[in-house]
Amino acid sequence: MNKYWSNITNQIEPYVCGEQPQDKKYIKLNTNESPYGPSPKVIEAINKCTNDDLRLYPDPNCQRLKSAAAKYYNLKADQIFVGNGSDEVLAFSFLAFFNPDNPIIFPDISYSFYPVYGELYNINYKQIPLSEDFSITPEDYSCENGGVVIPNPNAPTGRYLEIKEIKKILDSNIEKVVIIDEAYIDFGGESAVSIVNDYPNLLVIQTMSKSRCLAGMRIGIAMGQKHLIDALERIKNSFNSYTVDRLAAAAGEAALLDKQYLKECTSKIINTRENVINQLKELDFDIIPSKTNFIFAKHRKVSGNELFMKLKEKAVLVRHFNKPRIKDYLRITIGSDHDMKMVIERLKEILS
Amino acid sequence: MNKYWSNITNQIEPYVCGEQPQDKKYIKLNTNESPYGPSPKVIEAINKCTNDDLRLYPDPNCQRLKSAAAKYYNLKADQIFVGNGSDEVLAFSFLAFFNPDNPIIFPDISYSFYPVYGELYNINYKQIPLSEDFSITPEDYSCENGGVVIPNPNAPTGRYLEIKEIKKILDSNIEKVVIIDEAYIDFGGESAVSIVNDYPNLLVIQTMSKSRCLAGMRIGIAMGQKHLIDALERIKNSFNSYTVDRLAAAAGEAALLDKQYLKECTSKIINTRENVINQLKELDFDIIPSKTNFIFAKHRKVSGNELFMKLKEKAVLVRHFNKPRIKDYLRITIGSDHDMKMVIERLKEILS
Repeated sequence: MNKYWSNITNQIEPYVCGEQPQDKKYIKLNTNESPYGPSPKVIEAINKCTNDDLRLYPDPNCQRLKSAAAKYYNLKADQIFVGNGSDEVLAFSFLAFFNPDNPIIFPDISYSFYPVYGELYNINYKQIPLSEDFSITPEDYSCENGGVVIPNPNAPTGRYLEIKEIKKILDSNIEKVVIIDEAYIDFGGESAVSIVNDYPNLLVIQTMSKSRCLAGMRIGIAMGQKHLIDALERIKNSFNSYTVDRLAAAAGEAALLDKQYLKECTSKIINTRENVINQLKELDFDIIPSKTNFIFAKHRKVSGNELFMKLKEKAVLVRHFNKPRIKDYLRITIGSDHDMKMVIERLKEILS
Repeated sequence: MNKYWSNITNQIEPYVCGEQPQDKKYIKLNTNESPYGPSPKVIEAINKCTNDDLRLYPDPNCQRLKSAAAKYYNLKADQIFVGNGSDEVLAFSFLAFFNPDNPIIFPDISYSFYPVYGELYNINYKQIPLSEDFSITPEDYSCENGGVVIPNPNAPTGRYLEIKEIKKILDSNIEKVVIIDEAYIDFGGESAVSIVNDYPNLLVIQTMSKSRCLAGMRIGIAMGQKHLIDALERIKNSFNSYTVDRLAAAAGEAALLDKQYLKECTSKIINTRENVINQLKELDFDIIPSKTNFIFAKHRKVSGNELFMKLKEKAVLVRHFNKPRIKDYLRITIGSDHDMKMVIERLKEILS
């Protein structure tokens, strides 16, 4: 409490992101970054733009980046919105589509930023419990609501929902905006982008922080029919005309144009993931099926907190959420094969 | 109006930034960018960070950038906030310090983004008229209010208010946050940063887009006592954990460390400005005294709109605001000596 703070500042419980130690002494598997650097073409594009033109504002409309995204996703450029990471795109979306009084709905176990956006903008929300196995039941989302947010695959569980299930949620909420947050879609799922033109209520949000190896550059994208994108532009232009800087815009464009690199990186990560899952199972872990670049795993005997602390002592950072239902799970990012070999070794030491 | 839009999206009138043509056929003097590129040390710092580490999130706390700012401004690092341009810092500040019901106050002629932030967050505001000569009268800001925003120097007028006048506003609002928006302070004014430790209600906001030649990288800074910075961090961390990307953070740090380059650039611009003012006076312009990198000028015979259109036809972009009291003024950014020579020539052609 402070007399100079607004009511919101006094009341809000901010989001806490995964630890970002500024030294490099950890094997860092706590924020779902890629173990691989960005495409060489991204580096080249940034280098090319690092010149005196940085004195000039960026294109406020990010036209080149939008065109590259439109081409990649087979949409029109006016069906694309670009922001400073998918967190900013989500924050704008809450303000663009949801009203305070009609509660929006999202899963009880999901991205823990959603409730914070609700608090920030005073938008009521209701959390829909996941099933016992952490799956989403589409029928649960047909209740009266002011909007829907579904992460697919879900985080931190890693579980994926088939497009035909997503369609059920869209169909039963045709008058409300349904946000499908696809931060992890490139690791084995099918994107709902393919049905954007069928659903006037569908907004798909993606990020370049995971599969495109660009967490450091902050690029998020939203895709939907033009009237939804227009709403996001209205909010953005009432907040900050230029949220994507010149180098981020160039990086994002180059990343979208290099399809081959995306495919290589995600294939490697999927491959590593499946190997690690097998090894963890041998160590008595129960694992939620994952279509992401992380694994949500629970040991049959040792508590989540104990494993988290002991791994940290051994210089391995993973993510642990001290929350009901999931406190015995660890969320472990898929790193390089070498990183994962080290993690398995450390776990064997701890569990032996 | 659209049924998928929130009430705010339907109601708001977004800010319109100066035109950003993506070709280079204009002499561009409409958005107060620097005619000079950023410091060579900035370019070097960006190049050094353009590597595989872009796969990793930035430091969410921007510690290195904050330390450099603390050193430059003679403050502590916890008295510094960093954001994605001063527009984002302003947007966060409105939410962090102001409440909907108690109207905040700012000048009637000033940065046209302020009313938009008010609308975005449903914060009431009252605009205090500038005097006939466009100066700010500190006594006008001693009325009952929920907070104060003063741009100093003011934009688009260019007029500067002495620190002793700023102190009057701070003293008469000691229970309310007073934001001094110093986007243009480096072009001849004295910053209120020097009195941050004397006033628990003072927040100073600056940008690297103007004097530090980095509009393309989006770096804004706020300075104030720790309790004010904490409020901004709370709001930022409820919106987007990482608003400043790795390259922007490196660029900002390097820009702050190169004091000499800042001095050289601002001296050149001040010098050009004074020459241009003299030439415009000879062409029958009335000019508001400027401590910025732009001039606010009105011709004695020809209307603002006519001059704006004719200059545009001749490939010179300046800013014209079609608003009461200022519709006969042009806001002309100070470009290079060569740019300004061209502008004077074009004006002579138009006025002959």
